[in-house]
Amino acid sequence: MIYPDVQNERPKYAYKLTRVGVSDVKKQIFVKRPNKNVTLTVTIDLYVDLPATKKGADMSRNVEILSEIVEESIKSPCSSLENLSEEIVKRMLKRHEYASYAEVTMSAEYFLEKSTYSGRKTVEQYTLLAKANIDKNKNIRKMAGVKVVGITVCPCAMETTRTMLIEQYPEYEEFLNKIPVISHNQRNDTTLLIEVPGGFEVEADDLIELVENSMSSPTREILKRKDEGLIVLNSHLNPKFVEDVVRTVLTKVEEKYKGFPGDTLIQVKSVSEESIHKHNAFAEVITTLQDLKNKN
Amino acid sequence: MIYPDVQNERPKYAYKLTRVGVSDVKKQIFVKRPNKNVTLTVTIDLYVDLPATKKGADMSRNVEILSEIVEESIKSPCSSLENLSEEIVKRMLKRHEYASYAEVTMSAEYFLEKSTYSGRKTVEQYTLLAKANIDKNKNIRKMAGVKVVGITVCPCAMETTRTMLIEQYPEYEEFLNKIPVISHNQRNDTTLLIEVPGGFEVEADDLIELVENSMSSPTREILKRKDEGLIVLNSHLNPKFVEDVVRTVLTKVEEKYKGFPGDTLIQVKSVSEESIHKHNAFAEVITTLQDLKNKN
Amino acid sequence: MIYPDVQNERPKYAYKLTRVGVSDVKKQIFVKRPNKNVTLTVTIDLYVDLPATKKGADMSRNVEILSEIVEESIKSPCSSLENLSEEIVKRMLKRHEYASYAEVTMSAEYFLEKSTYSGRKTVEQYTLLAKANIDKNKNIRKMAGVKVVGITVCPCAMETTRTMLIEQYPEYEEFLNKIPVISHNQRNDTTLLIEVPGGFEVEADDLIELVENSMSSPTREILKRKDEGLIVLNSHLNPKFVEDVVRTVLTKVEEKYKGFPGDTLIQVKSVSEESIHKHNAFAEVITTLQDLKNKN
Amino acid sequence: MIYPDVQNERPKYAYKLTRVGVSDVKKQIFVKRPNKNVTLTVTIDLYVDLPATKKGADMSRNVEILSEIVEESIKSPCSSLENLSEEIVKRMLKRHEYASYAEVTMSAEYFLEKSTYSGRKTVEQYTLLAKANIDKNKNIRKMAGVKVVGITVCPCAMETTRTMLIEQYPEYEEFLNKIPVISHNQRNDTTLLIEVPGGFEVEADDLIELVENSMSSPTREILKRKDEGLIVLNSHLNPKFVEDVVRTVLTKVEEKYKGFPGDTLIQVKSVSEESIHKHNAFAEVITTLQDLKNKN
Repeated sequence: MIYPDVQNERPKYAYKLTRVGVSDVKKQIFVKRPNKNVTLTVTIDLYVDLPATKKGADMSRNVEILSEIVEESIKSPCSSLENLSEEIVKRMLKRHEYASYAEVTMSAEYFLEKSTYSGRKTVEQYTLLAKANIDKNKNIRKMAGVKVVGITVCPCAMETTRTMLIEQYPEYEEFLNKIPVISHNQRNDTTLLIEVPGGFEVEADDLIELVENSMSSPTREILKRKDEGLIVLNSHLNPKFVEDVVRTVLTKVEEKYKGFPGDTLIQVKSVSEESIHKHNAFAEVITTLQDLKNKN
Repeated sequence: MIYPDVQNERPKYAYKLTRVGVSDVKKQIFVKRPNKNVTLTVTIDLYVDLPATKKGADMSRNVEILSEIVEESIKSPCSSLENLSEEIVKRMLKRHEYASYAEVTMSAEYFLEKSTYSGRKTVEQYTLLAKANIDKNKNIRKMAGVKVVGITVCPCAMETTRTMLIEQYPEYEEFLNKIPVISHNQRNDTTLLIEVPGGFEVEADDLIELVENSMSSPTREILKRKDEGLIVLNSHLNPKFVEDVVRTVLTKVEEKYKGFPGDTLIQVKSVSEESIHKHNAFAEVITTLQDLKNKN
Repeated sequence: MIYPDVQNERPKYAYKLTRVGVSDVKKQIFVKRPNKNVTLTVTIDLYVDLPATKKGADMSRNVEILSEIVEESIKSPCSSLENLSEEIVKRMLKRHEYASYAEVTMSAEYFLEKSTYSGRKTVEQYTLLAKANIDKNKNIRKMAGVKVVGITVCPCAMETTRTMLIEQYPEYEEFLNKIPVISHNQRNDTTLLIEVPGGFEVEADDLIELVENSMSSPTREILKRKDEGLIVLNSHLNPKFVEDVVRTVLTKVEEKYKGFPGDTLIQVKSVSEESIHKHNAFAEVITTLQDLKNKN
Repeated sequence: MIYPDVQNERPKYAYKLTRVGVSDVKKQIFVKRPNKNVTLTVTIDLYVDLPATKKGADMSRNVEILSEIVEESIKSPCSSLENLSEEIVKRMLKRHEYASYAEVTMSAEYFLEKSTYSGRKTVEQYTLLAKANIDKNKNIRKMAGVKVVGITVCPCAMETTRTMLIEQYPEYEEFLNKIPVISHNQRNDTTLLIEVPGGFEVEADDLIELVENSMSSPTREILKRKDEGLIVLNSHLNPKFVEDVVRTVLTKVEEKYKGFPGDTLIQVKSVSEESIHKHNAFAEVITTLQDLKNKN
């Protein structure tokens, strides 16, 4: 039987649309990691633009492409979520023959073995991010990213309490100037997205390490007393505003990816769940490698 | 006692930051509405840019400005969230004397008396949105917006089931072509944001009406049988893809705000919680009034 | 026209159901507070039980009752959310003549003027909670509650870092034993629900004060340097596990509500967003006033 | 170095606590499924009770147990999340020697290959649930569960629109009484938890099938026109209130698990995101197999 192709009709109001597709699709995808293969549960949004002459996008094609991709990843695990995203937008532009643009966004929980300060092994949870888009000239932009949870200690409050303690105990001024003193600290979420130009590769595990080492301290899931004390101590020796976290990420990115082209896009965002407030502290930068070098 | 001004130090890594501030601040604000004053519980994000030479933004200034604004709104309710946003970014740029940019984003639940098809009064819940930003030349851009929940009925599935029913009951073809037949339908969230140029005003209640009438049907909280039947009937007489919802909003915006400047920014987004899928359907446009007129 | 009463049919599978109704209804309700009237945006769930002989509950009756209640609160603000809940379940049982049980749950954001340690006025955000249920013998149980966000400082990590600092600086042992030293601290959410027996009243503002003073310190939205230092200092002078927070609430409840009957139900829950972990710490008690007195 | 054991101190206020532990821990766990092994990303809460004489629970022990369990599941995938939960609470009671109770709750996204009505393979997303608790006499109660997303079509609105259509087209009354007519339909979440008594097993894939077949229709991720039409048609031939969904689950559970003991606990909950309202419809039952047989 032939069913009417309503999507292909002329729309009543002929306006071009920027993004049409499906959001919040969930898929299990098999990905090759350094020394292992992992299964990721990925949440995915997929969109194309829609010309003014077509009533509806053929949305099931997006999910069909995802389905093929998953099938293929079962046989041969994909090399990274950003390379997968690139492959997806290529197929989207081919399959939606009316579209001049396609984009995909992905995120997935991810686990890595790490160590505490005293050397105990733990498994920590992170979030992998990936994005790609393609235009009608087949220009592709893809980005790799991670979200990392750690701790920030406030540098300003530490100096204020130091002043207060010195006022109360002036005879210990020299000592109080030597040790880390009390401050507020809190859980911090920091996100890094970096463009991966054609011919270059970015390893997500490197991004995680880079971001985790940009906070006051990494956090760990199993902490016996000594390790708990060492996280507290080390984070207070390294107090950071959200602004400092973002800038530390930037300086590490500038160094690590210095071989990348100058127009490589960089986005960093850091949010601290302030323990002394009911609201959050936030810092963000959207820049390029070239602008980093220019210190803008 | 003098406490060290850590925010004002030179940062270790001197990069300019795009947005620094506080997010998820909650405030009760008193707003003048047509024929009444209302109390809104508003969630607010406030950011400035931060020069490469300054370690930290003075975040408490953002909350102080909000606090003053709330005090003033108790005495004299503000005219709209977007006008309030404009006033806030002006004060932010003045108070953060090192910043060359400020922005604020707001959202608040909002209630309006509406009628069912049979004329019964109900009170419906909507979301008000507002945004403003300012640059170093004091150029201000502000936007007013709403999010509206309604119902969409799928036009494609309706034609497919019509074909199926006609195949099964060919003797009723003419009748089946005349009546609305079964389709899937679902809850839909549609968001409209429109720039409010200097010297112009936008009434949020108008935006709500405009968006609500762009879906297959508005929904209502109290529905006795007749009204429930009328929503089902009217929405099936008016089936819409998310694409159709966005385009219907666009045509109404083009008509209603035709006196606004051509570069007035328009953003519309529609998300349907597809009843036949576990994922959502999504359509979005980011455009200007001029482009709407050009049918681009 | 008469429409079929499908809800009233015999169900295909005749099982009694425990709770049937509507969830996530939002309403603005006007409430009398000490010295002022406030507008609350309340999220409400309303359920009755359903006998095995009836196919569906008449759900629109729940929303009709809410609508009447709101109308009445406009004319005469209600005295508290828990008294409102009591009135609602009474009407539910009357209106759903087939039901032998009704319950309602409410929550609403709420704002109160508070002071920082140095005396500056700020407006802080809390959550009001209320619950009521009624059985076929008209026995009513109602509960009043609050959720409060504050700060907890870990007492264990503080003693560990004290030991570490003393090991490094043995000559300062006496001094290090005298001052609060560094620890991890974090945002904490603590919820208290207390039954309000017939003839008794509970004032939500009292519950907020009671809970806020059971954490390491209250937090405030506007903190200039001195007040920020004082929150850090005071919270480190008062380190608390989530267990300690719950027990401090219990001892204050036992004292403040000692005139209440022994079977008065008490629920306290405290969740700390651990800054040194990616997961949370949690403590909860469900008890009665009598059991508190028995120290069980 | 010896660090002070603060958790083991006497608390200032000696009250017994009901539940103390960690929440929102995430772990990847390897589970044996029919014909395959899968990797699940599991979110876990773990609690013990705390006697009045002990200041704090030793929370890191919970995460250590999880860590061991994960290690073991890498070598030998566990048979089910509920059996894993049983093993975890046993170890918790042993490791927290002061506790007389332990409980664990788990949830994980899960994917299964399914077919559309026309036979096309798709992969659908579900949620696995598991719970276990243990008391001081080593009595264990464990539960297995699933959450399934599907579609419900309202039976009441269908009869109302049928009446309306017949009034408008009385000459087609017979035909209109024969076909499914328009109604509202929406996404529905249904959750089933069933106790798994010692010596019995429950297969989660069976629970998923049982729940999915209790809604108006399952939903599928890839639907070409014919399959979309068939979901719409079949769901309208099978209209269901949330009450009907819960009762259909109950009758299938009563049949499928009739060999289980009478005191086997059953919980079913169904929530429809009503397309004609902004709020949800909700039905729940908490019962036992024996009560089902008694039709209570």
